[in-house]
Amino acid sequence: MDTLLNCDIDVFVDLPSTQRGSHLSRNLEVIAEIVEQGIAQPIKGLEVLAADICRKLLDRHEYATYAEVHIDADYFLQRTLHTGRKSIESYKLMARATHKRGDGMMKMIGARVVGMTACPCAMETVDEIHGNRVKMEGDLPTITHNQRNVTTLMLEVPEECEVEANDLIEIAEASFSSPTFEILKRAEEAHVVLTAHRNPKFVEDVVRDNLALILKKYTLLPDDTIVTVSSESEESIHKHNAMAERVTTLGELRHDSV
Amino acid sequence: MDTLLNCDIDVFVDLPSTQRGSHLSRNLEVIAEIVEQGIAQPIKGLEVLAADICRKLLDRHEYATYAEVHIDADYFLQRTLHTGRKSIESYKLMARATHKRGDGMMKMIGARVVGMTACPCAMETVDEIHGNRVKMEGDLPTITHNQRNVTTLMLEVPEECEVEANDLIEIAEASFSSPTFEILKRAEEAHVVLTAHRNPKFVEDVVRDNLALILKKYTLLPDDTIVTVSSESEESIHKHNAMAERVTTLGELRHDSV
Amino acid sequence: MDTLLNCDIDVFVDLPSTQRGSHLSRNLEVIAEIVEQGIAQPIKGLEVLAADICRKLLDRHEYATYAEVHIDADYFLQRTLHTGRKSIESYKLMARATHKRGDGMMKMIGARVVGMTACPCAMETVDEIHGNRVKMEGDLPTITHNQRNVTTLMLEVPEECEVEANDLIEIAEASFSSPTFEILKRAEEAHVVLTAHRNPKFVEDVVRDNLALILKKYTLLPDDTIVTVSSESEESIHKHNAMAERVTTLGELRHDSV
Amino acid sequence: MDTLLNCDIDVFVDLPSTQRGSHLSRNLEVIAEIVEQGIAQPIKGLEVLAADICRKLLDRHEYATYAEVHIDADYFLQRTLHTGRKSIESYKLMARATHKRGDGMMKMIGARVVGMTACPCAMETVDEIHGNRVKMEGDLPTITHNQRNVTTLMLEVPEECEVEANDLIEIAEASFSSPTFEILKRAEEAHVVLTAHRNPKFVEDVVRDNLALILKKYTLLPDDTIVTVSSESEESIHKHNAMAERVTTLGELRHDSV
Repeated sequence: MDTLLNCDIDVFVDLPSTQRGSHLSRNLEVIAEIVEQGIAQPIKGLEVLAADICRKLLDRHEYATYAEVHIDADYFLQRTLHTGRKSIESYKLMARATHKRGDGMMKMIGARVVGMTACPCAMETVDEIHGNRVKMEGDLPTITHNQRNVTTLMLEVPEECEVEANDLIEIAEASFSSPTFEILKRAEEAHVVLTAHRNPKFVEDVVRDNLALILKKYTLLPDDTIVTVSSESEESIHKHNAMAERVTTLGELRHDSV
Repeated sequence: MDTLLNCDIDVFVDLPSTQRGSHLSRNLEVIAEIVEQGIAQPIKGLEVLAADICRKLLDRHEYATYAEVHIDADYFLQRTLHTGRKSIESYKLMARATHKRGDGMMKMIGARVVGMTACPCAMETVDEIHGNRVKMEGDLPTITHNQRNVTTLMLEVPEECEVEANDLIEIAEASFSSPTFEILKRAEEAHVVLTAHRNPKFVEDVVRDNLALILKKYTLLPDDTIVTVSSESEESIHKHNAMAERVTTLGELRHDSV
Repeated sequence: MDTLLNCDIDVFVDLPSTQRGSHLSRNLEVIAEIVEQGIAQPIKGLEVLAADICRKLLDRHEYATYAEVHIDADYFLQRTLHTGRKSIESYKLMARATHKRGDGMMKMIGARVVGMTACPCAMETVDEIHGNRVKMEGDLPTITHNQRNVTTLMLEVPEECEVEANDLIEIAEASFSSPTFEILKRAEEAHVVLTAHRNPKFVEDVVRDNLALILKKYTLLPDDTIVTVSSESEESIHKHNAMAERVTTLGELRHDSV
Repeated sequence: MDTLLNCDIDVFVDLPSTQRGSHLSRNLEVIAEIVEQGIAQPIKGLEVLAADICRKLLDRHEYATYAEVHIDADYFLQRTLHTGRKSIESYKLMARATHKRGDGMMKMIGARVVGMTACPCAMETVDEIHGNRVKMEGDLPTITHNQRNVTTLMLEVPEECEVEANDLIEIAEASFSSPTFEILKRAEEAHVVLTAHRNPKFVEDVVRDNLALILKKYTLLPDDTIVTVSSESEESIHKHNAMAERVTTLGELRHDSV
């Protein structure tokens, strides 16, 4: 299925010290041309769009030695619940292309995904206060606070490497206490609540679990792939958020995991 | 204790059809004068500040028949936890003054308060799915989803009526499943989680409970006091929010409650 | 040409005092169904989408007596410059549908348009200070400050009335000192600057000129059509904005203009 | 004069791979303690506050090797117009402290300042189209588009170095086409408009002029001082903004200027 996306696009070129200003209207012309081509012939991904614009910027600004393009877009995917019912869920995609004349093009593919975390610490404390009774098989998990979590994954690789944004979204959704859904029938709602309480996670756990899945998935990407994972929980028991982030490389993750 | 507040101020005057434009710099002069007076002699409340600016706008714009002032400010109060520990919590205050030349001044006092709701519906469904076992005394509540909730209260009254923003904040905090706190030691965190699960509430319940406390508190305010309560839960199991709102009058609330 | 739009949708239903909460998942089901229909068969406008959702909300929430739907969307139109060159420009569309069971459906169609204003007052003062020299034919206009202006138009009418968002956008663009464009070649840029300085306008003028064009265009709409025009200039010489707004009816505008 | 500021504070500590999560409540305790100290005894600057919190974070999180603190605040200064009249203007301050255990503390002092730019390119084109008539002494500058510009300056230095935010604000205001003011009497408004048109500047010029003044002012700061200047014009003739940025060091600036 073709998907049409509304994009926010930021473009940058550098300027030699001998020139007073950049020819800004060329930036808009480049975007207009690429958008027109995209209507004639579908574009394969946001990062391909970013790379195409980036390349054309260097063509058009003959005095520039470096170009950079950022694109953000709303995105939608169909998800299947445990009951087999389908639901359309919303995401944010981010792409970036950077090109130093002479060097190759680098691209970044990213996704921002909303899910849910349940706190392991409060669960433990409630249990302690309640006398740590022996849990029977089939017992419900202990109550804790849970909340909306926003997790961002970004991979930066040479242009020729393949990274699918859909895979990043899948990794993020597998790393929450539970993914979340726009429509939940009663039994499905209970299922999400149970799933989240059976997988209590700190924001630090969410980052760690995303990194583990990235390590497992991207065996073919080079060691110097830059990996950024950040996770922010909109704490239900506080007015502030809790946030964890790691910026690393696939090489470092591979070394850590040995 | 004197509190200094950073304010966002919007001011409006009407314009007769015979005049092309308003003398906008007078608006800024009025604000500057009132701010200067406020440094010499503390202002009693945001709504007093709004009323003072509103009155002066009509003085200065002799051609105007109506003036309106909106002020928003960050606000802080000390709260006491069940353990006796103190915590500084943050709020938003809103004030509005409206003055039609010849009529009296009307003022609005409002507060935006962050707290927490736990869902009664998911709790019930989890219980049902789990066979509705007999609850024993001392049993923990059943798990459910809980989340950050933002509730806004506004009362609009003639200038001479007294409404304290601190009272509105107290009413809002008493109407959540639980109020929330910036610092929580482990036992306090467990207490908040337990409190919320023992008071599961829909956004509709939060609005209703705020209105009941407003009805009880403001016995001396007139029947035509306009009351607005809205409550928005940042659902942890969904990507969208749930919102309830009622705009009514004290008279209507009094009539409903008979 | 079919246009696909990303929408933000807010939906509301009222609740009888005998019922604790609304069945919120039905709201999302209604939206999902309407979106699916829209994929099979294009929707004629944002306000038609809003009305369809609104009707279905009352069908599905049998206990509700009132439903309301708000939709916002980014929107794009091709514009032609004075040189004949084409440019794609961006806008915001807003639609609202409100339905009280038993009464007819009301709909609101709105547009938010970015343009430019040049200040008549500073132009006059600069002239005065400079000795009010006699202007010759062909003289350039006097310098003044100019800035980005954001103007919002909204018309609220019964469902059966026809209002095209594109017409509202055209009215707004005709009411600025000059419309603005994403790509401007040098001669076109000079033309926009000249046009703006030959049509210096206060925010109050922009509102007035929009209302005059609305009055002229919508001769067939009923007297009780609610008309809202607001215009906000992001003043280049101040850190604050200047804003003017009028909420009126077509009947009142017709009466004023006699 | 003591100034009270409302701050947004973000704090970070790193986590050893052997530990599951950070003790988040300690972060809030550190902030609460520093805020309480600040009430007893005024704090010298936002960056001192950031450094104090940063140091205490490492004390309290004994397992952490690195801490980072970001603070943003609204800020106000009195400015004098060319007529001698005073005006209160608003700014944003930013501070950051970063501390790696064992190394010294680094701090960043920044300011975000709103001013005005007038475009040199459109001015030239209008002149050309108008036949490049000979300018007489006392002639008014040619019309052009002008707009609000937001410029951000940041200097990152070792803790012991002194950088005053007020100086950064002064540098920014000297680098616009003209600074802007909340209140302008008619003659002052004309003066701002004239000043801006006599100093037409691209965003690239604004960045360059800020860097030149930084180079001149901070002769005592070390070569490895990191300097960031970015300038964004909210173009009055376009719906998009124009932005320029340079991230450099004082050493590089000194080398360039030889």
